[in-house]
Amino acid sequence: MIIQLKQQATQKEYKKIVNYLKERNFKIKDVRSENVIVFGVIGDTSAIDPHDLYAFEGVDKITRVSTPFKNASRAFKAEDTIIKINGITTIGKDQFTMIAGPCSIESETQLRTTAKHLKAKGTHILRGGAYKPRTSPYAFQGMALDGLKLLRKISDEFEMAAISEIPSADLIDTFEQYVDIIQVGARNMQNFHLLKALSKSSKPIMLKRGLSATIEEWLMSAEYIMAGGNPNVILCERGIRTFEKYTRNTLDISSVLAVQELSHLPVIIDPSHAAGRWQMIDKLSLAALAVGASGLMIEVHPNPEEALSDGAQSLKIPKFNELMDHIETLTPMFGKTLK
Amino acid sequence: MIIQLKQQATQKEYKKIVNYLKERNFKIKDVRSENVIVFGVIGDTSAIDPHDLYAFEGVDKITRVSTPFKNASRAFKAEDTIIKINGITTIGKDQFTMIAGPCSIESETQLRTTAKHLKAKGTHILRGGAYKPRTSPYAFQGMALDGLKLLRKISDEFEMAAISEIPSADLIDTFEQYVDIIQVGARNMQNFHLLKALSKSSKPIMLKRGLSATIEEWLMSAEYIMAGGNPNVILCERGIRTFEKYTRNTLDISSVLAVQELSHLPVIIDPSHAAGRWQMIDKLSLAALAVGASGLMIEVHPNPEEALSDGAQSLKIPKFNELMDHIETLTPMFGKTLK
Amino acid sequence: MIIQLKQQATQKEYKKIVNYLKERNFKIKDVRSENVIVFGVIGDTSAIDPHDLYAFEGVDKITRVSTPFKNASRAFKAEDTIIKINGITTIGKDQFTMIAGPCSIESETQLRTTAKHLKAKGTHILRGGAYKPRTSPYAFQGMALDGLKLLRKISDEFEMAAISEIPSADLIDTFEQYVDIIQVGARNMQNFHLLKALSKSSKPIMLKRGLSATIEEWLMSAEYIMAGGNPNVILCERGIRTFEKYTRNTLDISSVLAVQELSHLPVIIDPSHAAGRWQMIDKLSLAALAVGASGLMIEVHPNPEEALSDGAQSLKIPKFNELMDHIETLTPMFGKTLK
Amino acid sequence: MIIQLKQQATQKEYKKIVNYLKERNFKIKDVRSENVIVFGVIGDTSAIDPHDLYAFEGVDKITRVSTPFKNASRAFKAEDTIIKINGITTIGKDQFTMIAGPCSIESETQLRTTAKHLKAKGTHILRGGAYKPRTSPYAFQGMALDGLKLLRKISDEFEMAAISEIPSADLIDTFEQYVDIIQVGARNMQNFHLLKALSKSSKPIMLKRGLSATIEEWLMSAEYIMAGGNPNVILCERGIRTFEKYTRNTLDISSVLAVQELSHLPVIIDPSHAAGRWQMIDKLSLAALAVGASGLMIEVHPNPEEALSDGAQSLKIPKFNELMDHIETLTPMFGKTLK
Repeated sequence: MIIQLKQQATQKEYKKIVNYLKERNFKIKDVRSENVIVFGVIGDTSAIDPHDLYAFEGVDKITRVSTPFKNASRAFKAEDTIIKINGITTIGKDQFTMIAGPCSIESETQLRTTAKHLKAKGTHILRGGAYKPRTSPYAFQGMALDGLKLLRKISDEFEMAAISEIPSADLIDTFEQYVDIIQVGARNMQNFHLLKALSKSSKPIMLKRGLSATIEEWLMSAEYIMAGGNPNVILCERGIRTFEKYTRNTLDISSVLAVQELSHLPVIIDPSHAAGRWQMIDKLSLAALAVGASGLMIEVHPNPEEALSDGAQSLKIPKFNELMDHIETLTPMFGKTLK
Repeated sequence: MIIQLKQQATQKEYKKIVNYLKERNFKIKDVRSENVIVFGVIGDTSAIDPHDLYAFEGVDKITRVSTPFKNASRAFKAEDTIIKINGITTIGKDQFTMIAGPCSIESETQLRTTAKHLKAKGTHILRGGAYKPRTSPYAFQGMALDGLKLLRKISDEFEMAAISEIPSADLIDTFEQYVDIIQVGARNMQNFHLLKALSKSSKPIMLKRGLSATIEEWLMSAEYIMAGGNPNVILCERGIRTFEKYTRNTLDISSVLAVQELSHLPVIIDPSHAAGRWQMIDKLSLAALAVGASGLMIEVHPNPEEALSDGAQSLKIPKFNELMDHIETLTPMFGKTLK
Repeated sequence: MIIQLKQQATQKEYKKIVNYLKERNFKIKDVRSENVIVFGVIGDTSAIDPHDLYAFEGVDKITRVSTPFKNASRAFKAEDTIIKINGITTIGKDQFTMIAGPCSIESETQLRTTAKHLKAKGTHILRGGAYKPRTSPYAFQGMALDGLKLLRKISDEFEMAAISEIPSADLIDTFEQYVDIIQVGARNMQNFHLLKALSKSSKPIMLKRGLSATIEEWLMSAEYIMAGGNPNVILCERGIRTFEKYTRNTLDISSVLAVQELSHLPVIIDPSHAAGRWQMIDKLSLAALAVGASGLMIEVHPNPEEALSDGAQSLKIPKFNELMDHIETLTPMFGKTLK
Repeated sequence: MIIQLKQQATQKEYKKIVNYLKERNFKIKDVRSENVIVFGVIGDTSAIDPHDLYAFEGVDKITRVSTPFKNASRAFKAEDTIIKINGITTIGKDQFTMIAGPCSIESETQLRTTAKHLKAKGTHILRGGAYKPRTSPYAFQGMALDGLKLLRKISDEFEMAAISEIPSADLIDTFEQYVDIIQVGARNMQNFHLLKALSKSSKPIMLKRGLSATIEEWLMSAEYIMAGGNPNVILCERGIRTFEKYTRNTLDISSVLAVQELSHLPVIIDPSHAAGRWQMIDKLSLAALAVGASGLMIEVHPNPEEALSDGAQSLKIPKFNELMDHIETLTPMFGKTLK
């Protein structure tokens, strides 16, 4: 950590902050020039929030040298993490994992019809929302527990793994019973209470990036889960909020490359939520493959016009089949396997 | 709701969506020009997520006519809401309510020292964090229940009301026991599970605006609480994320005026989190008063350098006293009372 | 254009705006429901700035039905535009066009060395900055006219086309003499004076997207050039500003798909400025190809450490050669030709 | 400037960048910890773009210690700058300067009517657009030279100073003839060609903040004007682009405080463009006064519904008169004078 004082900072102000740090066993290394006092703070600064140190008068700027996350960092673990999903597939490294299914679970027929077609094209994991985070209290809120049970039943029927989004910590036991991956939604990325509780779960966690979260904040949220004892975190980029309104969000495709430099954790791309327009899913999926993502999460619905949520971004079955054909042809070109 | 079709949309596509809407008892009013099919959807569309209707092929653009929130809207209730706080003060209309206290509760001495000075200058409500949402799992996480108990004790001692941030729904009973206002933090603004649970609480809720939330999203979150039966929602603007990094967030002062047009709910300004720099608190507080906010929430600490969180944005006692002197002088100029 | 009045709007307010529009030869079509007055404005509304109509009291919301751009729109011209570049190559449709070269032209040797290698791998167009837009007045500002002359000389030597960024309208004659494509930089995307002047040029214009511009604003700037008589506009996506700071900007890869729906103009991707990190160029370039872009603009430097600008994002020659090998292998897979 | 290398950086990489810097006469001060190489670069680094140094392999992060601007910085000149406006008024320090007038100059009658009322309430400076930057080529583009001539004529008639926005450098002579302050619009804030040309002008320059510009970028643009020899720069905050769409832009009121810490230049607030809604102008103006701005720029029109641009945000004369009454009452409370 590098701390720079204001030009008009006094010697007394300098001493105050230096003493504060020395009392906490940090070493100080001066690097001042003629005009400005600058010094390095040597030691494990991960528990210090730079923001707090600005309370010291005379402080002008504080810069972190080490990353604030440890378990999630590439420096901590050099090789790519590979996460086993209930004996059915893996996520990470050369594997290109396909997750697909309806936005919301609406009925047994809807889910079975969808799953049958997905399985036929080699999809590994079935997704389906049971507890839906909706911006309006008047919109369909999901089938809740009945939905989870259906998801388990149909996943088993087609030998697929199951993933669904958890709304709060008190449902962890239930989710552990019915799904193979617990998803944390974008709006809960910094629900630290939930993250801490999930750090005690034995299930892999898929952590979606928050609507306007930086990559560092995203990895810090992963760190919450890992620091508590759960190393199996899958990151999912689902678009960030920008001024562009033609797409629902803006897919930050470079985030895959950034995460690969900073961390050993796998990144899945969700083009459905990113674009919010089914017309773009195919091309964005190929871009995700090209850039090196570890897989895709795609919304598929047998009849999107009647979908109770997210119809605009759901692929119909024939379109999904086309996408899978493209993916199958191209995975070897990019060093990935769909197996 | 106005729906516009693409220029190349077919008659069949038009019929499909129109039939879908008619089946749901909406009326259709055509407004097409030579080139484009456009029609209005008449009826209560609040349960429709426009996004879902984009699933219909041929749809180009959908525009809401009515606001998606009802209980929170000015159209629903014309006069300003005034919220009673445990017989101690009110929030709303002509009252200018002062909320102040440390970011985190750290000890009985720290809280009592702070409260004594705040009370002496007429502060109505004592704030203090017990469960702290920190971006790092390695940072101080708050005193938890012990903190809440201290907050109650000291608030009673000085005849102030108490407010603290709730981390999750399972703590609602505890919070109801110890505080007078339950605060929902910015990162939980769209934690719909929590909002629904709070809609059953008898306590007023202070809802902070999310880091990159629009005003409509903010009011939709208030609607969640109100729709479930709790009409006592206080909004709190605490700065939004922008590209500017000199300040921690950007105080959106115009949001007070926007909310006053759209809603009858009171808005409090939190300049501490908005600016993240104590040097700016005094001037931003006066701007909040000038623009018509219903009060302020200010972080105050007897010794910010030793604060376990948010030292940079905490006022020292003498600075807070100065601020209160300014506020006292100016409230009558802006038609407000500090009583 | 759909205009919606406020619930409390008076009949007099309604008449005032309706008369105003009728006087300007628009037709009005009512679509009001019980509570709210809503009406369509039929006619050519492209010259109306909706913002101006908000001046009428009682107006609540105005929504455009037709796009505000004409010449640039897909509705105006269905087939993809193909732009001829001085007999050397084309941009648009199946062609995948490679533009590469140093950020700044620094010397004849630097430019020749770079161009020789680029040409050997099939690059069509040589880029090089002569008038550099730098955020600091103390940074290297470019070789100016000497740079342009070098660019022409070296381009001719290797039978490549030449592109460079123009700083202001008074240099159009000079640029027409020395380059084959005139580039408008991101910071000048809404320099309307410059756009109007370029609409009279005979040269194709490459229009970079502004730092925080929406796609509609970008196409409106293209419209400025086209409306004045120059149909040869190439769009260039170079990343938009977001909260993410790990990359210099955020490459909006979906913008290629959005533009293809809205317009017939070709889109080039500039991954160098988008990422600002040479390590990401290769993968982002493949993603650009996958998504259907019309080509790439890449910064290449024989010795980036000594570059006078943008060293961080410049590829070394061997890395560029690797990239070209990847592109060559993959273009046929995506229905493109490098010819 | 502090440079930090990657953990895996080699000794050779370290030597390469250190030698590069030493050759340019910088001194190096080591501050490395056990794991990471970090060093300070001592000397005048203002001409170095940190971005360029990332070209060196092994570099992880670069942090500026000194501000990249000099002439504009508070460190360079401690006392507030006061700018004389043609013997009529001043801008800066205790003076609260009122600038008002129509968005666009539309006719002699319109301008005279407006000016007469403005002058009657003590407005110092008359604004009026002659060359209008419009997002659509089909919208009214302004009266050009005829507008400027009218502005001069009417300003002289009422003994007011005149300000108007310049579209490009080749019109500087014309503007110097007709106006007292040359305005640079938000979209031209980084039109460096224009800024350099204005640095040679004898007239004060009002520099509007760009739509998504940071305060540092804004001050760097001021630096361009000052570095070339023109010290008379007035900054104007006019709202920044955010996700909030209820207001046209988001007024960043804290920017006044930030600029006052970083620079000695005065800041004017333009609430008209910030909010884009005349209903908010009065309250936002008072907030601007409360926060310490050096004045206001307000759009006023005798008949906004008929305005050829920006009607939505223009005050009618009676509303402007009310605003001036409020301002007059409150300026002494905030240590300002309207004189």
